[in-house]
Amino acid sequence: MKFVTATYQGRQFVGMIDSMGERVLDIAMAEERRLGKATSPVSLLQCIALGAEWAEGARETLEWAESEGSQCFSPLAAVRLEAPIPRPTKNVMCVGKNYAEHAIEMGSKDDIPEHIMMFTKSPTAVIGSGETIPSHKGVADELDYEGELAVVIGRKGKEIRREDALDYVFGYTIINDVTARDLQRRHKQFFIGKSLDGTCPMGPWILHTSAIDNPNNLNIHTKVNGEVRQDSNTEQFIFPVEEIISVLSKGMTLEPGDIIATGTPAGVGKGFKPPKFLQPGDKIEITVEKIGTLSNSVGE
Amino acid sequence: MKFVTATYQGRQFVGMIDSMGERVLDIAMAEERRLGKATSPVSLLQCIALGAEWAEGARETLEWAESEGSQCFSPLAAVRLEAPIPRPTKNVMCVGKNYAEHAIEMGSKDDIPEHIMMFTKSPTAVIGSGETIPSHKGVADELDYEGELAVVIGRKGKEIRREDALDYVFGYTIINDVTARDLQRRHKQFFIGKSLDGTCPMGPWILHTSAIDNPNNLNIHTKVNGEVRQDSNTEQFIFPVEEIISVLSKGMTLEPGDIIATGTPAGVGKGFKPPKFLQPGDKIEITVEKIGTLSNSVGE
Repeated sequence: MKFVTATYQGRQFVGMIDSMGERVLDIAMAEERRLGKATSPVSLLQCIALGAEWAEGARETLEWAESEGSQCFSPLAAVRLEAPIPRPTKNVMCVGKNYAEHAIEMGSKDDIPEHIMMFTKSPTAVIGSGETIPSHKGVADELDYEGELAVVIGRKGKEIRREDALDYVFGYTIINDVTARDLQRRHKQFFIGKSLDGTCPMGPWILHTSAIDNPNNLNIHTKVNGEVRQDSNTEQFIFPVEEIISVLSKGMTLEPGDIIATGTPAGVGKGFKPPKFLQPGDKIEITVEKIGTLSNSVGE
Repeated sequence: MKFVTATYQGRQFVGMIDSMGERVLDIAMAEERRLGKATSPVSLLQCIALGAEWAEGARETLEWAESEGSQCFSPLAAVRLEAPIPRPTKNVMCVGKNYAEHAIEMGSKDDIPEHIMMFTKSPTAVIGSGETIPSHKGVADELDYEGELAVVIGRKGKEIRREDALDYVFGYTIINDVTARDLQRRHKQFFIGKSLDGTCPMGPWILHTSAIDNPNNLNIHTKVNGEVRQDSNTEQFIFPVEEIISVLSKGMTLEPGDIIATGTPAGVGKGFKPPKFLQPGDKIEITVEKIGTLSNSVGE
């Protein structure tokens, strides 16, 4: 199941991609036809907070709609996909340097972390697939891409054990952790260099956890203008998803809709000699196995 | 004007402290009596988002209520004050090492930053004055206090000039940026060590900006069990409030209700030899001139 936040003919709705990958189901509209009333809330964030039963109900609604030939589908190509959670209720949490080869390209072997490094991106930075990343001319000179698998939390939890961690996941999406390297270097703590408006492309959808047995074994690659820059697999994680959730929830409550970006593999612009920072017009495509492709261009 | 989020007899409301500092006005209830209907939204965050006119209207309502001898007051001593913004819509933003003497006590003169360092605290960490800070036994061994002046943004803005910065401030409050020093050290980026549940005491209220001409000249001191540990003045800021707002808003949109903690002066527990970390039962009182005192104890 792929859940989206979509806009069609001016109306925003929570949707699901059909089994052919060609149409988007308006879940609430289909519920109304099937059950006589819409039971899903208006935002995907609120839907996620309803727990596993909501996703199960959505699955049944999609099956009903496909078998009935329902009119509640829109062509995927005609719909605008927003970020699946357009406005998270707290900052996006991000793991720094979770692939050894990336830690080395950013400095040396001494930069491979022994413990999870965690920083955040402002929710004002979130944009959807297809939206434009501002070039931030005059603010930042070294804009860089970072393709990442992101985890969306589905259940409130604290002191979560590694062996239970995946039970707390609603699903997975893709994040481009766009980074202003000059600001990141200048301000030391990463928040400022990671939080410029439009520097957190997310999407195109959330793939439900039921479709991914093991998030720590997914191919991930990033292209810039068609050139492969990052090409790795999440089996290269220093800290697997279960450990990230376990460590983060030690003393801090995780909540439904929390988003955790799991770090980027080697091949960022800064890692090249000379560096290949983003330029106006550049198109970045990040593909994660099973999930799909997040695609954004840099504006003028 | 001091704005609060208060609970009295099980009901949460947006309030103002009266001119004698003894009672809390229920603003919406007073509006209903005065104007025939309550015009203020139910949360202080939503009120702030209405802009300067809302605060002006609240001032008039308070004046009316005091002159009329209105029944819309509750005794301050009988009311429970929550954090003025109990659930911020993004992480609390914090300046690291904004007093030179504190930077030195945390390391050496080399730690005095040339540029603003910014990290964040999770909104799940926020508690009010009088609430208990969990001891986080088994998670953190080195819990420490940090008394700070906090700025509450009142208007949406980006690329804000230093000379305009204070126009974007709704008011000021106090934050105890409680920090798990062992986690802060272990995880390098500060987010994890700064975001344990209950480690962002805030309050007791927001003092409206009209009461503070210059936020960069306020006495600030912190007592632990009555012993003065921090005693400074915000004139010691390396980066004054205007510069913090200007730098943060370069490329990143600030929004009403955003909270920025401005850094802590020398005298944190870690700065003593041997260190004086917080222990269960310790009471921390942070006083900022004109604003008031934020008081919290550490639980068992």
